[in-house]
Amino acid sequence: MTETTALSWPLIQQAQARIAGRVSLTPVLTSTTLDELSGARLYFKCETFQKAGAFKARGAVNAVFALSDAEARRGVATHSSGNHAAALARAAALRGIPAYIVMPDNSPQAKRAAVERYGGRITYCAPTLAAREAAAAELVASTGAAFIHPYDNLMVMAGQGTAAAEFLGQVPQLEAIVCPVGGGGLLSGTAVAAKSLRPGIRVLGAEPAGADDAARSFETGRLQPAPVPHTIADGLRGALAERTFAEIRAHVDGITRVSEESILESMRALWEVLKIIVEPSGAVPYAAVRRGHAGLAGQHVGVVLTGANLDLDRLPWQAA
Amino acid sequence: MTETTALSWPLIQQAQARIAGRVSLTPVLTSTTLDELSGARLYFKCETFQKAGAFKARGAVNAVFALSDAEARRGVATHSSGNHAAALARAAALRGIPAYIVMPDNSPQAKRAAVERYGGRITYCAPTLAAREAAAAELVASTGAAFIHPYDNLMVMAGQGTAAAEFLGQVPQLEAIVCPVGGGGLLSGTAVAAKSLRPGIRVLGAEPAGADDAARSFETGRLQPAPVPHTIADGLRGALAERTFAEIRAHVDGITRVSEESILESMRALWEVLKIIVEPSGAVPYAAVRRGHAGLAGQHVGVVLTGANLDLDRLPWQAA
Repeated sequence: MTETTALSWPLIQQAQARIAGRVSLTPVLTSTTLDELSGARLYFKCETFQKAGAFKARGAVNAVFALSDAEARRGVATHSSGNHAAALARAAALRGIPAYIVMPDNSPQAKRAAVERYGGRITYCAPTLAAREAAAAELVASTGAAFIHPYDNLMVMAGQGTAAAEFLGQVPQLEAIVCPVGGGGLLSGTAVAAKSLRPGIRVLGAEPAGADDAARSFETGRLQPAPVPHTIADGLRGALAERTFAEIRAHVDGITRVSEESILESMRALWEVLKIIVEPSGAVPYAAVRRGHAGLAGQHVGVVLTGANLDLDRLPWQAA
Repeated sequence: MTETTALSWPLIQQAQARIAGRVSLTPVLTSTTLDELSGARLYFKCETFQKAGAFKARGAVNAVFALSDAEARRGVATHSSGNHAAALARAAALRGIPAYIVMPDNSPQAKRAAVERYGGRITYCAPTLAAREAAAAELVASTGAAFIHPYDNLMVMAGQGTAAAEFLGQVPQLEAIVCPVGGGGLLSGTAVAAKSLRPGIRVLGAEPAGADDAARSFETGRLQPAPVPHTIADGLRGALAERTFAEIRAHVDGITRVSEESILESMRALWEVLKIIVEPSGAVPYAAVRRGHAGLAGQHVGVVLTGANLDLDRLPWQAA
């Protein structure tokens, strides 16, 4: 796979063609109740209904099907807190190749089960980025698999960008899009896709205050180190890479921090009002706008609900 | 309001016109995972996303807007375990008239809150049909409100029938439709609508074994008394009326009993796989087909997911 240095709209268009028929076109929901609370017109892009339960299916399918037959032959490998893991296992199964997955040993049971369901071969590691990277490197060395990073990968970023492109096709009047930021793959793809299609649109990231390396990097203009994250939003514990940070610096209009309490309240509100399952990470962008947001009042605002994989035996508001 | 004795397709068509713009057109979801388990092609009609969280919005809006101004002036009244209560309160608010609601004192908190949100005036009573009817009669006598029974009402039955008509418009290839049966309003409306549009289609009811008056009545051909129901499916504790039983005898092909365990497992499977909130009553029709059903193998089967209102603080599988 040849990678250019920057993400571009043509790469996202190629991704659209590559993933067509291999992922779902997800619906957009609205709620007058939630509109009134926010003071904006909210449109919820339900990637919660995406294949394997999260937008990650887009980037994984694009990356796996962009490989040449020679590259794909020995399979693919990654490390992931969960949703990319399941998405890559699914994409590999679609292509008929093995998937080797490194997961932190504190990953939600629902996310482990999903990887197993798609035939992924799991190796567990300590819940640190260093441990994940070391275990993945070892796997790649022993299997010869192609490494598909969960976000520091141009094909993955391009695939994630297809969600925003699809969203703008469904709701052309969007004036802003808010999506969560962990490693920055989705936010990068969203920003490039949205600004290519609608140069005047605002693209905002939303990040747990307890894992705010992206906000700090964005504010200082330099990639900041990520301390151990403290957030229930398990999908957003990753840290920006140079590649995603470059796109975010160039194209994103702001990053909002949200508290743990706000994430929980937002998640519950989405369950109660929209009647859909959303995991904590997926509720983060709604948390950023639910009680109004400077500059978004009265606007048509797209909120990307990124995933719906969590353990139903104990819900976060019950653990509190 | 003049009532003829039997439900008919023209009454359902009138209901379609009357409720247009006042209720939602709800989406249909599918899942290859659930298809494989059932051996059929399942289509899930998500009335869980209906206004006020249940199909009951259809019948309530139809009944309230079918009233003359003189009839409507003093408001409407009903007794309901929950979803009809909220739906009637909402419909009355749309028309700008008061709604007097009798609810059993064991109704889920989420259903009480919904009635209050729409401005309904609640009177609580003991959780028996006799207590409900007595309290409602008293309310009607003191207020002069029009009584809108939750299912023993032709306009309500006609409104509920619009769900099946809409479903067949979305999935013309349906060969069978399965819906839950409590008092029989939805099943009556579904049967008349579906058989009018597709004479050869099969219409099946699904009922908790612990509240199986409909199955017993259907099997014996005579309306059977309903003992105290024992089921977690709080929306299905009502008993058939003569009026709904007549439609069910005439048009329904069978009624399947499902166990409490199967209701819980089905509800959880719908949450985990479809990623939507479904209340116990709403999971009952899926429980009837999830592991295969004689006569439905390989067929295109519509499953009506009726509602999504329940207390999120303690989920049924946690109480078990």
